Amino acid sequence: MAELALIAALERSLGVRGDRIVRALGDDAAVVGARAVAVTSLDTAVEGVHFRLDTHTPGDIGHKALAAALSDLAAMGVCAGEAYLGLVLPEAVDDDDALALMRAADALAERTGTTIAGGDVVSGPALVVSVAVTGWADSPEEVVTRDGARPGDLVGVTGELGGSGAGLALLDGLDVRDLDAGARESLFQRHRRPQPRLGAGRALAAAGATSMIDLSDGIATDARHLAKCSGVSVALELDRLPLAAGVEAVARAAEQDPLALAATAGEDFELLLCAPPPRRERLERAAHALDCPLTWIGEIASGAGIELRGRSGAAASLAGFEHGTPQARKYRAAGRPGPDEHPQRRSADRVPPSEPGPA
Amino acid sequence: MAELALIAALERSLGVRGDRIVRALGDDAAVVGARAVAVTSLDTAVEGVHFRLDTHTPGDIGHKALAAALSDLAAMGVCAGEAYLGLVLPEAVDDDDALALMRAADALAERTGTTIAGGDVVSGPALVVSVAVTGWADSPEEVVTRDGARPGDLVGVTGELGGSGAGLALLDGLDVRDLDAGARESLFQRHRRPQPRLGAGRALAAAGATSMIDLSDGIATDARHLAKCSGVSVALELDRLPLAAGVEAVARAAEQDPLALAATAGEDFELLLCAPPPRRERLERAAHALDCPLTWIGEIASGAGIELRGRSGAAASLAGFEHGTPQARKYRAAGRPGPDEHPQRRSADRVPPSEPGPA
Repeated sequence: MAELALIAALERSLGVRGDRIVRALGDDAAVVGARAVAVTSLDTAVEGVHFRLDTHTPGDIGHKALAAALSDLAAMGVCAGEAYLGLVLPEAVDDDDALALMRAADALAERTGTTIAGGDVVSGPALVVSVAVTGWADSPEEVVTRDGARPGDLVGVTGELGGSGAGLALLDGLDVRDLDAGARESLFQRHRRPQPRLGAGRALAAAGATSMIDLSDGIATDARHLAKCSGVSVALELDRLPLAAGVEAVARAAEQDPLALAATAGEDFELLLCAPPPRRERLERAAHALDCPLTWIGEIASGAGIELRGRSGAAASLAGFEHGTPQARKYRAAGRPGPDEHPQRRSADRVPPSEPGPA
Repeated sequence: MAELALIAALERSLGVRGDRIVRALGDDAAVVGARAVAVTSLDTAVEGVHFRLDTHTPGDIGHKALAAALSDLAAMGVCAGEAYLGLVLPEAVDDDDALALMRAADALAERTGTTIAGGDVVSGPALVVSVAVTGWADSPEEVVTRDGARPGDLVGVTGELGGSGAGLALLDGLDVRDLDAGARESLFQRHRRPQPRLGAGRALAAAGATSMIDLSDGIATDARHLAKCSGVSVALELDRLPLAAGVEAVARAAEQDPLALAATAGEDFELLLCAPPPRRERLERAAHALDCPLTWIGEIASGAGIELRGRSGAAASLAGFEHGTPQARKYRAAGRPGPDEHPQRRSADRVPPSEPGPA
């Protein structure tokens, strides 16, 4: 396909949602009617670091890159607005692949009320997808940040954990016998097609969540970011972590503690939230109304860092993880290698060394 | 430098400008007080395509990536607001390089009133800098788009053309004897440290420009984009193109028509603007007040595409360029290779095959 034909096809694959778009695509920049507060994040997904072309379809890659960016808006409790996609295309990615990537991103944009309003396409040595997203709120008070947790707050988490990491282990060829086809497919989906919790993020913000963060790097890492920003300690009851179906079987096959896998493997894109105990029922009702599981897994205390309570094997495994694995945050450094680490494999870096649990 | 130390150092290198930033860096997303209209663009610069590590310092790369994005806001006639930088860092780019890149970007941000409010850092096989920028206006009517040109409008251009392309030719090793050190350095600067015309863009918008576009791909290509968006023809008087000092000498050494070089080499990041003749003096005063050269180089007619008037050699050269070189626009495809083109060299692709002019 010729250059302009590819661009025209990419543009045709995109829809406009809502009535705030004055001008999208085809100009130097997009023009959008604003609300009072803009909430913006930029995420970059790199071939060989965040995905591989032999385990992820172009559609998986487009979906996941946008989902990861929208998940940041979910954690702020705001509506998604516009997305801007920058594609670096290597020779191995042909025009049909580029279109499939963009169509999958736009399908997620459609489901989340997002408009892909601009971006660019350039050639390069590896597939890179940069996604900037802007969400909107009517006042700064509506926006939930990482620094609002206070001692005594309850700590909750949406959905289930470990599914993405277990799916990645399966993609990497881990042999797991006692896993039915449905659970296997579900784990693949959780890794390849994560769903940003935008509706839950808004509902939990409205119901009084005082602080939120999305779980992109694993709860052991992300809870520590929240603790640092809020100037508190996060105590987590490991036994209460809600595991996705199939995670135990995958962890057993990997000779790993399932709770450690769930707490560290990352990319679940669930929300960690904090709130004073009197708001508990209101938050539960808000989550229930959206069919979003909400599990209380700990509490905020004075101090710093995270405190892991529960099974000693998992806690020991995580204690090792705390000091041995690269951390990520905004300005987020994903997979920037330390001296002993392979530069190409961010995801694998996240799974701690296998360490059998006591059970 | 350890991971978190690099991130902390990057964050420390950034300043906050203006009073609209509620929260920058360190959270899932930045929170910014909005004005009525958001104008947003995303640009991606790739090692081996837009720059080379042996001819551009990390500071050049950070400056230029942000300058290219801000130039899109200049062409819309709006104030710069926030920038978000995504860095993909290969092993060849160490932490000091990353800091130098970010500091140069922030120095340009400081001069343009921009706040670098977020972004991410990941590892990867080549240096990639993605820059999302948001500018602000108080109403959609303030924003100048590509589709406002009407038959009878004058066509003007800011500054001088060809400097960036001539600088690139020098960086690529072209031997040019009759060029003094000052002119040589000036051409290098125009290629490595282009200055976005933000002030001129706002002033020309306020003085009644009906349509603008920034010259990222060369006036022969960018004028065609404007013609297509506006549904008109752009007639350019080649002899009136304002050439940067040194461009003639470089073109002579390359056995190329200097006007063809100036019209096609790209990355000058000047502004092409249109306006009805009665606004001519007002626009000239606006540009003069900013010490920004403004040259009238053509006019809008009914029809389509561009009409090149003037020296036959340059016109013939450009006619060949029209059909033989990849074009770029938003959704911009920069350097996406055609079947016969080298995938790595966007800039070189832009310079048409050498064709001696008649003079």
